[in-house]
Amino acid sequence: MRKTDEFEPEIRDKARAARMTRPLWVDEKTRTASLEIGGSLLALIRELYPIGRSITGPGLRATVARLSEIVPLQIAEVPSGTKVFDWTVPDEWSVEDAFIEAEGGDRIVDLKSSNLHVVGYSLPVDAWMTLAELRPHLFSLPEHPDWIPYRTSYYSPNWGFCLADRVLKSLPDCRYHVVIRSRLAPGSLTLAEYVHPGSTQDEVLIFAHDCHPSLANDNLSGLSVAIHLAAFLRSRATHYTYRFVFAPATIGSLAWLASNEASLHRIRHGLVLSLLGDRGPIHYKATRAGDHAIDRAAWHVLSTEFQGSRRLDFEPWGYDERQFGSPGIDLAIGRMTRTPNGEFPEYHTSADNPDFLSADALGQSWLACLKVLEALDCDSRYVNLQPKGEPQLGRRGLYRSMGGYQDVPARQLALLWVLNLSDGASSMLDIAGRSRLPFGLVANAAADLERAGLLAPAPDAGPAGR
Amino acid sequence: MRKTDEFEPEIRDKARAARMTRPLWVDEKTRTASLEIGGSLLALIRELYPIGRSITGPGLRATVARLSEIVPLQIAEVPSGTKVFDWTVPDEWSVEDAFIEAEGGDRIVDLKSSNLHVVGYSLPVDAWMTLAELRPHLFSLPEHPDWIPYRTSYYSPNWGFCLADRVLKSLPDCRYHVVIRSRLAPGSLTLAEYVHPGSTQDEVLIFAHDCHPSLANDNLSGLSVAIHLAAFLRSRATHYTYRFVFAPATIGSLAWLASNEASLHRIRHGLVLSLLGDRGPIHYKATRAGDHAIDRAAWHVLSTEFQGSRRLDFEPWGYDERQFGSPGIDLAIGRMTRTPNGEFPEYHTSADNPDFLSADALGQSWLACLKVLEALDCDSRYVNLQPKGEPQLGRRGLYRSMGGYQDVPARQLALLWVLNLSDGASSMLDIAGRSRLPFGLVANAAADLERAGLLAPAPDAGPAGR
Amino acid sequence: MRKTDEFEPEIRDKARAARMTRPLWVDEKTRTASLEIGGSLLALIRELYPIGRSITGPGLRATVARLSEIVPLQIAEVPSGTKVFDWTVPDEWSVEDAFIEAEGGDRIVDLKSSNLHVVGYSLPVDAWMTLAELRPHLFSLPEHPDWIPYRTSYYSPNWGFCLADRVLKSLPDCRYHVVIRSRLAPGSLTLAEYVHPGSTQDEVLIFAHDCHPSLANDNLSGLSVAIHLAAFLRSRATHYTYRFVFAPATIGSLAWLASNEASLHRIRHGLVLSLLGDRGPIHYKATRAGDHAIDRAAWHVLSTEFQGSRRLDFEPWGYDERQFGSPGIDLAIGRMTRTPNGEFPEYHTSADNPDFLSADALGQSWLACLKVLEALDCDSRYVNLQPKGEPQLGRRGLYRSMGGYQDVPARQLALLWVLNLSDGASSMLDIAGRSRLPFGLVANAAADLERAGLLAPAPDAGPAGR
Repeated sequence: MRKTDEFEPEIRDKARAARMTRPLWVDEKTRTASLEIGGSLLALIRELYPIGRSITGPGLRATVARLSEIVPLQIAEVPSGTKVFDWTVPDEWSVEDAFIEAEGGDRIVDLKSSNLHVVGYSLPVDAWMTLAELRPHLFSLPEHPDWIPYRTSYYSPNWGFCLADRVLKSLPDCRYHVVIRSRLAPGSLTLAEYVHPGSTQDEVLIFAHDCHPSLANDNLSGLSVAIHLAAFLRSRATHYTYRFVFAPATIGSLAWLASNEASLHRIRHGLVLSLLGDRGPIHYKATRAGDHAIDRAAWHVLSTEFQGSRRLDFEPWGYDERQFGSPGIDLAIGRMTRTPNGEFPEYHTSADNPDFLSADALGQSWLACLKVLEALDCDSRYVNLQPKGEPQLGRRGLYRSMGGYQDVPARQLALLWVLNLSDGASSMLDIAGRSRLPFGLVANAAADLERAGLLAPAPDAGPAGR
Repeated sequence: MRKTDEFEPEIRDKARAARMTRPLWVDEKTRTASLEIGGSLLALIRELYPIGRSITGPGLRATVARLSEIVPLQIAEVPSGTKVFDWTVPDEWSVEDAFIEAEGGDRIVDLKSSNLHVVGYSLPVDAWMTLAELRPHLFSLPEHPDWIPYRTSYYSPNWGFCLADRVLKSLPDCRYHVVIRSRLAPGSLTLAEYVHPGSTQDEVLIFAHDCHPSLANDNLSGLSVAIHLAAFLRSRATHYTYRFVFAPATIGSLAWLASNEASLHRIRHGLVLSLLGDRGPIHYKATRAGDHAIDRAAWHVLSTEFQGSRRLDFEPWGYDERQFGSPGIDLAIGRMTRTPNGEFPEYHTSADNPDFLSADALGQSWLACLKVLEALDCDSRYVNLQPKGEPQLGRRGLYRSMGGYQDVPARQLALLWVLNLSDGASSMLDIAGRSRLPFGLVANAAADLERAGLLAPAPDAGPAGR
Repeated sequence: MRKTDEFEPEIRDKARAARMTRPLWVDEKTRTASLEIGGSLLALIRELYPIGRSITGPGLRATVARLSEIVPLQIAEVPSGTKVFDWTVPDEWSVEDAFIEAEGGDRIVDLKSSNLHVVGYSLPVDAWMTLAELRPHLFSLPEHPDWIPYRTSYYSPNWGFCLADRVLKSLPDCRYHVVIRSRLAPGSLTLAEYVHPGSTQDEVLIFAHDCHPSLANDNLSGLSVAIHLAAFLRSRATHYTYRFVFAPATIGSLAWLASNEASLHRIRHGLVLSLLGDRGPIHYKATRAGDHAIDRAAWHVLSTEFQGSRRLDFEPWGYDERQFGSPGIDLAIGRMTRTPNGEFPEYHTSADNPDFLSADALGQSWLACLKVLEALDCDSRYVNLQPKGEPQLGRRGLYRSMGGYQDVPARQLALLWVLNLSDGASSMLDIAGRSRLPFGLVANAAADLERAGLLAPAPDAGPAGR
């Protein structure tokens, strides 16, 4: 087996040549487009919302089928019983109907009115029981009496219903007909992915979990941002190869990792996407090591261009970054969300519905992800060809002709920073980080200086990275 | 001479085997006991308070004799005139009586009413003199007119009296009979220590100075906490060997260091104990290097479990950490106090008496010291045996069976952190530090995971440490 | 060519011997003198203010001639057309007369009333024109209607006038007689320097730009502080060789660097001086690397002794530190100012006149620069000869004889810090930094300890430095 870096020299050179002339991804047009894209994302979320998803089953397949209409996904089915590391892919689950009827015939709870009503992976049941017998199978949220909680029991055989606490509290002490028409039988778990080839086999992994039923922020927002990032990249020459993976949380990422173990070494950077539609500030959660290129790129872009953004240290709780950041996998994968899991009251309840989301927030999330990826893909290192003193920018048309002003325009400052730090070791992202100027401004300054003959690609120029 | 680490392999292996099954020291019972221990500590302080101590002499011997009733101490006497590094052990000092009488016969100042009245190491005097002649030998605190200050003149031949400023200001301009019946003659300086053997010869040194007369916080609080830490460890199998040293400040620690120079290399960690009974927050003063294992252990325990605690950088001022941290000794010894020296007005005055102390504070100080030592002694490194993704904790009974909750219980989070960082290099203390979870929670999580077969001791497992 | 460090051993030894006994520069007398020096500096500024300076020409020569009366400067003329790195020395410019007269004969703008009225390097003009034709050549500051701005056009052939916005707004729509009697012809650019030889050829460079016409803070304040630092050092034995350079901004520092490229390796530390007379706090702008000895010295001195001081990170914008910090030059040169360029409204306007400055601020700036240089020049490393425990300072008269006090005098604390950290690796500046005590206090403590036989120069003692 050959190592990642053992490409044929011609390919490597072509890649490098390509980089040097490749323009930035995001211009004013893209920025404007992001406003419209927010609307498309929200429309897609509204379409996908009613589907009853779980970690396996028909809802999951329907979801990836709809995403495939936007960018064609490659589907893989992992059979029930497959060992994935320390886990086993469970039987496939589906539910056709589920309700509770009081003895008078009143239907108290009905799957048809919300997919959240039935605990995920509930075993089939069809029985009459007293309220006392039923009670241990009912879940509600006393602090939000009108909201239905979201509960699952994937690996512990059980059944149950989730309902509004106001309904639960009003249940008369009678007998109830309890029906769950579910099926739990050997089948498979559905994985979906799209690969956008770049000029190198080094990869960026974008992961979104797709197993949550009728929850909009978690994670239809992640799915819709991810598929539209794929749509944007599709028509574009990139340095990295981009791999978009849609899979159930935990067991899905584990199954994907287990199936692709031999090629994980190609993954240089990555993002888990989730919770990208609420109105809270964008949060970047760092990789386990915390100092990878993705960490620097993400936090630089967010802190300089997306006001109010916050950086979270890694912790082994949250979404699939837990698996990607496990000690035996240890990929450089961060996470983008707006308000993090568990930190907004609507999280994992029926209140996380499409009305909770904002098209503006979705569009901005999409743009933020794009700019983070751009900062990795378009990063480069140069050497200043006139390193003794500042070169005379004025005679090259790169500097205002009149002197004496109190301030310096940001674009001129970017030229000076690029010249000052282009010693072949610092990349444009490093320079953007130190100068606290937006990455695009710095990269454009470098392009101008290269055109003016003042910069040349560093001898081993390539993407920065760890 | 053999190096510290050249133990016979079997001994080393036995030590390691012992570690793996050794439970944490502090459980709910210990925590409850600490409340009662505070009362015992204060009672002991009240007993020791009236004794007139100095850096040599009978008061010092009476003090260590009383401590010996709790845990038997080994006594060493260092003769006057012994060279200890740059110093010489001084003559032994004792004082039988000391007073000032006005010519009318009124006794203005009397040693019998407070040991602080006479300047430590005062030469004998018996003379009549005017107030003007007497005045240079009188010390008071104008800012606290009712308190008697504490003054000494160990190495400069002198005599003097300390008294309340209110008394000083009221002295009539008459003649005074001034008497100090002291004795300064060749004798010895008393050192006392207790050694609790552990499974390794690597040592932890606990030092408390015992030379201050009738001052409660400084340092009867340190003596009482130290002797009760020794009492707790006595019945317990420990990894480290614990050495408790009671000695006069400065000359005592120097004498002890000089007598034990050949075996100082065994000391891996240590604490100076003082000022542990006032109501202020606990302060940890770091070692000279500031990044030893004791620094990390102490600050982790205090910052996660003892609210309001503060960390002080090392400075060459304070107690015997000055000697332990001198460049030619350079031991990894930190210091635990509550309010530091010089930062509370009662410091070194008659107001530092047993009524100034709190049994609760003393008990809490004892518990804090114990937990710091526990974090060093019970620290260990493990390897995650299922490092690819998270192992399935649910089927091992280590994870709640139902999913979807907003938060994660601290105990589950501790399990995830231990799994995530157990790469053989990070110790439980490192993991506790990064996760900001209490050490005991992390160590217990590791024990649960080891029992479940998910962790194994790291190949070179042993105490972390610098 | 020989390397910097290849001095003859005897010279090196002599240098070292000299250091060990050399007293600090700044004592109480110097501190008092700094108050008077402020007045002298302001008087010099008032004298130099009316001279019409530019980057070349007679005003520049007159300025350095006046400075030469204080300390004799060596003058070098760099001919027009000389290539300096990426630049070319421009033709020499002078202006004899310049005015605008309205058709009625009213003189609207006149060079005689302010040197700022004519744009620097204006081409000659003598023409009648309408207000519409004249307007593009007029510059004013609408936000400060009474102030005249400062504008130049060194490298782009142009002409123009600067005037108060209130005057501009009142101009009647008539025809104007516009006259600039300037001359732009081959000549030379003037460099001036003074070298104070030290006991080593290692140099400290002090640079001040001298090209600004009738602006007081920028940079007559820098010139006057620099020349008086030179005057102070002139009578003094120093470790370093001090080189004071007075040159026009940008093209002047580039010309000096290009002429002296072969000996730049001798420059170990340096400061650019400017804007030292306003009432704002002192700002130190760090070198490009940010962790040179000059960075530590400057920030230590300012933060411990000059209240309100601030530290700025390097950026490639400002004064000639831009050239010294370019990647191909990369000298360890920081910058001292009070309020930085562009951060006070008077900057680059007629309001930056001598009345804007304060004699106290100038004197304090001079003292601050001196103390920063002192901390570099008088820095040294020692070895504690009694490293086991603290030596007994009392019997050497270095410690108060009575014990028990609540606090410790700063001078005793300095003794303890020097003893504690004098391991041969830490310099006095390092120790001052860690202890946060003033450098002079620490250096004096070291001298006392050396005299007492407790310290010896470290085997390779010499100036600290990077």
